[in-house]
Amino acid sequence: MPSRFELANAIRALSMDAVQKANSGHPGAPMGMADIAEVLWNDYLQHNPANPDWPNRDRFVLSNGHGSMLLYSLLHLTGYGVSLEDLQHFRQLHSRTPGHPEFGYTPGVETTTGPLGQGLANAVGMAIAEKTLAAQFNQPGHAIIDHYTYCFVGDGCLMEGISHEVSSLAGTLGLGKLITFYDDNGISIDGEVEAWFTDDTARRFEAYGWHVVPAVDGHDPDEVKAAIELARQHDDRPSLIVCRTVIGFGAPNKQGTEACHGAALGDEEVAAARERLDWPHAPFHVPEALYQGWDATARGEQREADWQARFARYAEAYPEQARELQRRLDGELPVDLGSEALIEATQADGGDTASRKASLACLNTLGPQLPELFGGSADLAPSNLTVWDGARAISREDASGNYLHYGVREFGMGAITNGIALHGGFIPYAATFLIFMEYMRNSVRMAALMGQQAIYVFTHDSIGLGEDGPTHQPIEQLATLRSTPNLSTWRPADDVETAAAWHAALKRQAGPTALVLSRQGLPHQSRDKQQLANILRGGYILQDSEGTPELILIATGSEVGLAMDTAAELASAGRAVRVVSMPATDVFDAQDADYRNSVLPPSVTRRLAIEAAHPMPWYRYVGPEGDIIAMDTFGESGKAGDLFAHFGFRVDNVVERARALLD
Amino acid sequence: MPSRFELANAIRALSMDAVQKANSGHPGAPMGMADIAEVLWNDYLQHNPANPDWPNRDRFVLSNGHGSMLLYSLLHLTGYGVSLEDLQHFRQLHSRTPGHPEFGYTPGVETTTGPLGQGLANAVGMAIAEKTLAAQFNQPGHAIIDHYTYCFVGDGCLMEGISHEVSSLAGTLGLGKLITFYDDNGISIDGEVEAWFTDDTARRFEAYGWHVVPAVDGHDPDEVKAAIELARQHDDRPSLIVCRTVIGFGAPNKQGTEACHGAALGDEEVAAARERLDWPHAPFHVPEALYQGWDATARGEQREADWQARFARYAEAYPEQARELQRRLDGELPVDLGSEALIEATQADGGDTASRKASLACLNTLGPQLPELFGGSADLAPSNLTVWDGARAISREDASGNYLHYGVREFGMGAITNGIALHGGFIPYAATFLIFMEYMRNSVRMAALMGQQAIYVFTHDSIGLGEDGPTHQPIEQLATLRSTPNLSTWRPADDVETAAAWHAALKRQAGPTALVLSRQGLPHQSRDKQQLANILRGGYILQDSEGTPELILIATGSEVGLAMDTAAELASAGRAVRVVSMPATDVFDAQDADYRNSVLPPSVTRRLAIEAAHPMPWYRYVGPEGDIIAMDTFGESGKAGDLFAHFGFRVDNVVERARALLD
Repeated sequence: MPSRFELANAIRALSMDAVQKANSGHPGAPMGMADIAEVLWNDYLQHNPANPDWPNRDRFVLSNGHGSMLLYSLLHLTGYGVSLEDLQHFRQLHSRTPGHPEFGYTPGVETTTGPLGQGLANAVGMAIAEKTLAAQFNQPGHAIIDHYTYCFVGDGCLMEGISHEVSSLAGTLGLGKLITFYDDNGISIDGEVEAWFTDDTARRFEAYGWHVVPAVDGHDPDEVKAAIELARQHDDRPSLIVCRTVIGFGAPNKQGTEACHGAALGDEEVAAARERLDWPHAPFHVPEALYQGWDATARGEQREADWQARFARYAEAYPEQARELQRRLDGELPVDLGSEALIEATQADGGDTASRKASLACLNTLGPQLPELFGGSADLAPSNLTVWDGARAISREDASGNYLHYGVREFGMGAITNGIALHGGFIPYAATFLIFMEYMRNSVRMAALMGQQAIYVFTHDSIGLGEDGPTHQPIEQLATLRSTPNLSTWRPADDVETAAAWHAALKRQAGPTALVLSRQGLPHQSRDKQQLANILRGGYILQDSEGTPELILIATGSEVGLAMDTAAELASAGRAVRVVSMPATDVFDAQDADYRNSVLPPSVTRRLAIEAAHPMPWYRYVGPEGDIIAMDTFGESGKAGDLFAHFGFRVDNVVERARALLD
Repeated sequence: MPSRFELANAIRALSMDAVQKANSGHPGAPMGMADIAEVLWNDYLQHNPANPDWPNRDRFVLSNGHGSMLLYSLLHLTGYGVSLEDLQHFRQLHSRTPGHPEFGYTPGVETTTGPLGQGLANAVGMAIAEKTLAAQFNQPGHAIIDHYTYCFVGDGCLMEGISHEVSSLAGTLGLGKLITFYDDNGISIDGEVEAWFTDDTARRFEAYGWHVVPAVDGHDPDEVKAAIELARQHDDRPSLIVCRTVIGFGAPNKQGTEACHGAALGDEEVAAARERLDWPHAPFHVPEALYQGWDATARGEQREADWQARFARYAEAYPEQARELQRRLDGELPVDLGSEALIEATQADGGDTASRKASLACLNTLGPQLPELFGGSADLAPSNLTVWDGARAISREDASGNYLHYGVREFGMGAITNGIALHGGFIPYAATFLIFMEYMRNSVRMAALMGQQAIYVFTHDSIGLGEDGPTHQPIEQLATLRSTPNLSTWRPADDVETAAAWHAALKRQAGPTALVLSRQGLPHQSRDKQQLANILRGGYILQDSEGTPELILIATGSEVGLAMDTAAELASAGRAVRVVSMPATDVFDAQDADYRNSVLPPSVTRRLAIEAAHPMPWYRYVGPEGDIIAMDTFGESGKAGDLFAHFGFRVDNVVERARALLD
């Protein structure tokens, strides 16, 4: 039987060898956390390497994602589909072992980490998902959803603000099955953290209501094991295990310093580490006895088989619940979602309303069919209008609801949303003012990068929000959203387009969707059946001229009404004007050229785009003979009507600019 | 003599009246914090209403900026240029009293607040600026810079992650003259915070090394006063005074609930509050005795006069230091900055290098002339290359340096940078990877909104950073920066353009500048004298064809070298190709039409833009007959060369796309 130290050294050796071969990467964290990982993975982690998607597996998140070789080593050693060759191609294009753990690239990687702090937030989201799914589906004697979420964090994660947001919330919610290991090694990239990070972290987490195990020797497996036992006993609160470690443990000349954080150790130091660790094996060679010591495949299959048997008993006792749980874990929408009917009904029966209110109406209509909807707002529920009739807040005592009051924690909300989506069983939506998308910005990007279905309800979408002024008025945010790969962005013009946007968001499972909604009322538009269908093509002719148009007005959201009023005035003066509503430029861009050219014929070069936001997205559509009425300054505080008039969103101004193009 | 309660009620009455008249705004916080503000402003705050720019004034920051009527009431009552009429135009277009406090709109408003948590961060920045300026300039017996920074925060500020980042750093730095008042009223927009915010905030701040005065009755002036005394005694640490308050204090039916947070109370409740507070006066009427009780003009003038006398003595004893301090407080650059000479010298003597390294060279050359430079990086100093030869870190014990190790706290860094800039005496620069601009995003926007000179050193600007992969590779970030009003963004192509970018950033005092720099080496380009001068026009002809070009290649940063190589190949095949380097689109857009048309003649419609980032910014320049080689997906992990090749940034691909335009 190999010793625990030998088992841990397999991680150290693979990590330093892979970083050395790539001449790029971070050996320090894997070598420092190897002993902790060995205890956790060999003695506690419930997983099945043959099926990384087993729903009831424990989740493991490496929030300090730069230490990716720690995770790749663990996956390789325990029997996942990560080969030695994969490790040898660490950080190379098209490998399974990219520089940071990337969801979807590597079996067993639960989430993409690297942007610090967000892994911890994802883990909090996974723990929330577990707690809520368990509360919704478990039955007496049938704890069918029952797993831990383990998370590794470094100094960097704990310096980041998001760690505050999500740890505070995790404490409030009493996430007792979240166990976090803090790699307290005293080193970050700039050097010894004592000059810039002097928190009493144990005390800080106690202030959040966590159970803290302080001052654990992270290189003593017995201490680590005892700490995990304590953490599991305290199941009413999340646990933080503060592990004192030596970064780069085993590299005799560089350990304990920033020199081993983010660069290959060098051949000489790697050789010295081999000697220090008593690891005589060739690069990338792990003795068979160690592989046997690590192999989790048999245990993993047994674990899942046991769970499957338990699930079968559950399905027998509670067939309806089991089918529903299976549907939700499979990410299948209910057969009868009703969102297409909702679009039609809204066209027929709708009226003038703010798109945020239209969004609430969608939630009220679709929500009852969608128990997987899990909503929340960053303390703006009464403004975002996200608490629909069937929304019920989860709490520490009762997590069976479907709504979370995130508090004023936008970034935490975004990354928790990603964790909930990654866990499975839910379609999460998250809300704030569009401007505060910026606070959560990188989590939106991460959802897009990971291809997760998150739905963002971003209200108060322009100067139309009025008196709150320029700090609250988005200008450049639509350009940001629309330039984000794999993010779909809708800015609906009325209640009907809002219903279409919700429909599209619910159907879009390969990535996130942003719904950009108005505070103020918007006029309901008429559409025939074809126009109604064309909304879902992202851009369409809302009103056409007789014959070939001389001019095309392109608008979104609140400016569509202005375009329609302008077109009416120009038409009464005998001009042939088409109005194109373009709620989702990304969806429109994905249409075939024939359709796009039918909406925006290349021959009609007089085009005027109108959007109360930065003009950058519109040059693509108006061309050099076109014009754009937009915002290239910040807004102002004042009544919405005064602001629209002040910034030129008036019929007379649009008419004037249109005439300048026409004449 | 009016009582303290009566004085405080003047704030309450003005606040509820102004919100009621506007039928928009937040009465809860002003009414809840009125008693605290009364003690602080009447007994402690060292200011001069007649001169809001007096350099040694105490700074007051309302981080819960939605409570703007609290601040406007204080400014009005103590004698600033804020009239009753201004208050009556609260939240109206063109008023001095916008919905949130806006720097530059209202005398006495020290910073723009509203986006929660950032005011606290600004205050930390101001306290850092005070401590460092004092350490640099004070002399024995001459404490010429010596003031407090006071900050009000609400629950929202303390839930935000940025509060963690900056409070942690403030504790480490021992900012003893920062005194923060927490409005612990138990209410946020969604309702009673106990369901989502259960931190033991006192314990949390103790973990940061703060001095905490817990459980102060925020409506008892004696308790508030005693707490302030304690805070001032503890001058080795920042202080948090936890004030238990009733939101909307005085509104008998709405106080203590979210109903008074963010909406007018209504005529009936305003009347009831008048009765409850024993405030029989008409709306907007404050009795003369109360005005006299509040008036700070005489004391303020005396205070500043005393300081001016002290400054005169200082100037007599230390004339050189006094002149230098005056220069820095006036925001005047040194006469001999040397940045123009640096551009020329770099053209003459430069070579191939990464633009981040060229940036370090600029700092090394210009730094010695610029003692006001105050740098920092969010724990990426060895990568951002921001520690120049003359950089010296500040610490708790010695704040006389010019560099701050911010730790992994991007957002905190950005908002602290704003506080330092607002304080005066410094030109701050702040660094991180371009991708993590997203973590600090809204602080960049706030610098632009406030017109503050902050310089951002954003390195690792594209897939060219290589192995760290898609989490670290910017795509849409340039579109975000370039669509931000009043932000100037430079992506230099070589060492010469980097020197020009630093020159432009140092000269640009009306707003922030982002320097977007490469990790990898870039080829040094040749330029004649005119081309060299034209760099500062944002875009210029780096290489021209003989005669009228058939094609224009437009590129920035690392893609300029690719454009040059492509042009060489096309030229050798007899094609007339112009290469335009466009390091700063905003600067180019601001040139006169003649210049712009000379660089991009309207007649030359075959244009190919090349940038390893999202194409959105380039449609404006290439038009419908042009093409863009850019990134509309996320990146990958791999060697930089492999990635550029994979994503089409190869001469053969650019040639092919160019030929498609030409043929």
